[in-house]
Parts: sequence; structure tokens; C-alpha cells
Amino acid sequence: MDSHAIRSSLKAPVQHGGDPKGGEARFGVPKDGWVDLSTGINPVPYPLGDVPSQMMARLPLQADLDALLAAARRAYGVADHAAIIASPGTQALIQSVPTLFAPSDVTVLSPTYGEHAPAWAAAGHAVEAVNSICAQAAHTAPFGVVVHPNNPNGRTQSVEGLLAFAGELHDRGGLLVVDEAFADVMPSLSVTPHAGCDGLVVLRSFGKFFGLAGVRLGFAVTTWDIAERLSEKQGPWAVSGPALWAGTQALNDQDWIEATRQRLKTDALQMDEILQGAGLNVVGGTDLYRLVDSPNAQAVYETLGFAGISVRTFDYQPNWLRFGLPGTDDGWSRLRTALGGL
Amino acid sequence: MDSHAIRSSLKAPVQHGGDPKGGEARFGVPKDGWVDLSTGINPVPYPLGDVPSQMMARLPLQADLDALLAAARRAYGVADHAAIIASPGTQALIQSVPTLFAPSDVTVLSPTYGEHAPAWAAAGHAVEAVNSICAQAAHTAPFGVVVHPNNPNGRTQSVEGLLAFAGELHDRGGLLVVDEAFADVMPSLSVTPHAGCDGLVVLRSFGKFFGLAGVRLGFAVTTWDIAERLSEKQGPWAVSGPALWAGTQALNDQDWIEATRQRLKTDALQMDEILQGAGLNVVGGTDLYRLVDSPNAQAVYETLGFAGISVRTFDYQPNWLRFGLPGTDDGWSRLRTALGGL
Repeated sequence: MDSHAIRSSLKAPVQHGGDPKGGEARFGVPKDGWVDLSTGINPVPYPLGDVPSQMMARLPLQADLDALLAAARRAYGVADHAAIIASPGTQALIQSVPTLFAPSDVTVLSPTYGEHAPAWAAAGHAVEAVNSICAQAAHTAPFGVVVHPNNPNGRTQSVEGLLAFAGELHDRGGLLVVDEAFADVMPSLSVTPHAGCDGLVVLRSFGKFFGLAGVRLGFAVTTWDIAERLSEKQGPWAVSGPALWAGTQALNDQDWIEATRQRLKTDALQMDEILQGAGLNVVGGTDLYRLVDSPNAQAVYETLGFAGISVRTFDYQPNWLRFGLPGTDDGWSRLRTALGGL
Repeated sequence: MDSHAIRSSLKAPVQHGGDPKGGEARFGVPKDGWVDLSTGINPVPYPLGDVPSQMMARLPLQADLDALLAAARRAYGVADHAAIIASPGTQALIQSVPTLFAPSDVTVLSPTYGEHAPAWAAAGHAVEAVNSICAQAAHTAPFGVVVHPNNPNGRTQSVEGLLAFAGELHDRGGLLVVDEAFADVMPSLSVTPHAGCDGLVVLRSFGKFFGLAGVRLGFAVTTWDIAERLSEKQGPWAVSGPALWAGTQALNDQDWIEATRQRLKTDALQMDEILQGAGLNVVGGTDLYRLVDSPNAQAVYETLGFAGISVRTFDYQPNWLRFGLPGTDDGWSRLRTALGGL
């Protein structure tokens, strides 16, 4: 029994993309390999050289961490008065933020990324899924979670609305968690530059936009008080040497960031054209993924699976399929061909 | 203010080796660079090739984690009935184990690695430092921590004694944490192969023996129940792709492991000869570090510092200095020269 099996034995596992294991049990191993469209991770990673051996060998240095945080502050437009901490993946912060507070009530704007609700529940909070930020604001719960832009439907909120809601939750003794895992592709809508005020924790993921999910790197941008408490929870050397090295380089490369935003926008429009050409209804998404709502979703999933293309299904909404972007001409071509045969 | 400063602002920081920042404030930057003997990390890392780009890019796969855990089971001699989980560094487990239990009493066999006591205290437990395992067993606390072999003095316990103590703590409703961060150099004394019984959590560090502290990788070997709860706390994808890749290779390389044990033993004996030749009293250690007790410790520290050699001092015991092993002929030579001038 492995650690995933351990996890699954305790409760229903949270559904995720990115692992071919399930698809292979169903469709076998494709002869040309998988075209993995099951995640929202940029398929064209930031181009790194080889990890310097000293970043693997020695303990991460304070100077390495300082350089990373400075790069993240610039890239995300963090205000000087806000605090920022780095963690080994945003998931680690999703797990730890709820443990900072005595059991209370929390609303999660839903449907959304599946790990928030169980993390709050595991920390003893009563979790309620609500389907609009208005319903969330009308609720009496002192804590709230909004994934922004939302995964999988891409729903966004106004910065003003999020800040007002955060202020309200602060007045109730709680706070708002805004998970901006996919906000890199829409910086003008990001609430990160406004973090630092009371009642707001913004989470940023490094791996998705930069296509480096394996390095495990995420950030929380918040008040000094909350940052101190999160930092205490994770202890020293939380972020690995390779993550410090990769993150500093990539977050400092404004040219690559701009060019990648443009490329992803173009690719997402190409995806729309292919999906619509196949008669599929695109109902939302971001420039890193598109969401389709179709009564034939199950048949489309099977057709794609037998063609070696994995997309994301949703237990709670069988008519939905989420399409990440192919990273190669071959991937695009296989997708066109497979959807052409519908 | 950076994350370390955040941490330090909350409480007195825990003292550690491995970062030249403090030494440089005092001694300046040495013209030939530092010979860093301030940690117990093997200075000759396991020889890795370049990290495969896919281990940085994609989310860590279940198959990668399974391979790592199988390698760790073989290398550490974990019993089939015991559970093992991987984490991003043993430090992460030191932080999370105390949070599994309602506030209680814990004894820490002391002096020892400085992070255990604050982690238990932060989780609400009453922590008492005791100076022998007999005193620890005589205490009524249901929880205990033993670093084995101990850091910095190298003190060991019998496997039988540790297992009996774990059983006793289990009867009291608690458990024993045995931190075997340096046990790779004395496998016959390790309690890891006996883990899996109730009341025992054994922590193993990857980075020290394999000289790869930057990758952040550690393990807990324990019962299925405790492993499940630790796994829930850390959530999915806790261990990075580079760590999964490096750990699997290195833990499977039994020849390198054996040869390294021999080399470290030889090097530690060479360190004894140099220290004793300089009139310094070696009072303990492991094959990864030696502990010196000297009324001239402060003067020795300064002499070494001005020669660009950093060793570990101890706030609570000013007569102690801990010497890690040099990794190059030049390092050994600089140490001999500097100590020859005492």
C-alpha cells in the first residue's frame, strides 16, 4: 500500500488530472504515448538549464530564499506593505491555512478545485459549498474561499468585490482565501497587488503557468501576522534548492512571461476553434484550459481515450470535460483528428 | 523582511549550521571560500546526472512515489507490516507529528536537535527536556522524542530499550518519536527495521547521508494509522519530482551506500586524529560529525573562522564545537593548517 492508497482509504479521494494510471486501466497504453490534456499546466515549460549541483547538495540558504521572494514580489506585483512566503507547492498552503484558526464556518465558491473543502473540514471547520459570491457574502460564515479565476469554469470576480468581501469577513473575525493558481494569464484581474490588507490571503502557484509543476513551489501573499503563522507551521528549509533556483530564474524573466501569455491566448483560441468545430459547447475556462458542456461528454471522453488523449472529467458534473492545451504540433494534430471523427 | 526574519521575530530562532551568513558578518568572506564544517551533511554527494526535464515539468506521478517508497523500504530494511510515507524533508514531519495529538506532555532527550521541542510546544504540548532515557522512562509523559544517534553528541540507545520504551508510551496513550537522521552510518543500531509496532514513529532523513540536503526528502516509518494521518496532513504531491528521482536512484544503490559508510568511517577517524593532534578532546559524534569539548572552544572557533572554516557552536554549551567532515583534500589541508596554528 502506497501513500496515495493510504490517503484514499480514509475518504473518497479528490479527483485530479495529470496521472495516466486511471486512463491506462481503461484504454491501455497508447502506441504513440499520451497527449495529456487532463491538467491546466502549461505544456511548454520555462526553459531551464541543468540544476546546479550545489542546489541539490547544500541546505537551501537564506540568500536563495530572499532572491526567490524578491522575484516573486516583482512578478506578482506584491505591495511593499504585504508579506509573502514561499512553500513547497500551493497545496501545502491549502492544507495549512485552515489549521491557523479555531473551528468555524467557511463557504467555498463551488464547484471548484477539490482540495479546499476537505482541508477546511479536516481542520474541524463546517464547510458549505455556495454557487455565487453573492450567496457567499450573504452567508454568516467568517471564512470564505474563492478560486480566481475559477477552476474549471474560469469564472472571475471584480477586484473591488473580492476586497470588499475580504473586509467583511475580517469584520466577522475571519478571512478570505483567494486561490489565484491560474491568475498569471489574466494579471489585470488579479487581487494579488492588493493583498496585505486585513482579511485576505492570496495563494499563487508557480508550476502551472511556468509548466514546472514537479518542482513544487507556491506562495501566500497576506498580512505579516498570517505570514508569520504560516511560516511557523512549515518550519525551516520548506522549499527545495531546485525550486528556489528554478523559481528565481523564471519569475525574473518578464519577457518570457509576456510572450507566454500571448502564446497561451493564441493556443486557447485555437482550442476554441477545434472544439466548436466538433460541435462542442465551450462554456468557460482560462487561457490554460477550456471547459466543455456536452450531453455527449462521456462518448467524447471515450473517443479521445482510445486515441490516446486524456482530458479531465468531473464526478459531480458528467456533462463537463476540461481540455488543457497540447504542447506540440503532433498533440494538436492528434486532437484535431480525434475530434474530427466524432 | 524575509521568511526567516518572520520566523525569528516570533521567538528565538533555532540555531543551525549550513548558512555562511552569520560567519561572514563576523569574519568576512574568505578569499578561498568557506570550508563548511558546520553541518553533519556528507560533503561528497551521491553522484546524480541531470534532473530529467519531465521530473520538473509534470506533476509527480503515483508510479514515481511508489518507486521511491520501494527503494526506501529496501535501503532502510522496513518490515512488510510497517507503513512508510515520504515528505519534503524530515523537518516537515517534525512539524506535523505533534499536531496529530491533543495537547499532552512530552519529554525530549536533550541536548539534541533544536527543532523537536518548539514543534511540540507550538502544537500545545508541555515539553520537558530530560538528560537520560532512564529519566525519560521514569517520567509520566505519554510522548517522547529521542534523536538516535543523537545530534550533536552521538549518544545511542539499544534497540531493545527503545522498543520497550515505545511500548510503554503506547500503554500511556502516547508514542515515541525516534529521529534517525544520522542512522545510515550505524545501521545495526537502527530501530527502523522494528518500526510498525504500536507507539513508534521513526523519522529518516535522505539529505544527510546522501549529501543532498537541498532536495528536501525525508520519511516516516510507523503504523498504518499514524501514516494515514500524516499523509492526510500533507496532502497530494508533497514530494517534488527531483526529490523522487534522486531518492529512488540513491536509495537503490547499495554499493554506493556501503562504500560511503566505509569512507565516512575512515574520514571520521582522520578527523579524530587531527582534532586530538591539536589537543582537542573528542567527546562524541557519529561518522558524519565529531563533537569537541574544550575550554578554548571560543578561541578555536575564531581561529577557524578567520581561516575560512566554519564549525558549529552551541548557545547552550559554549565549550562545545561540532566538526562536520571536509569533502576535498584542500578542505582537509586547510583544517590541518588552521588547527596546527593553535
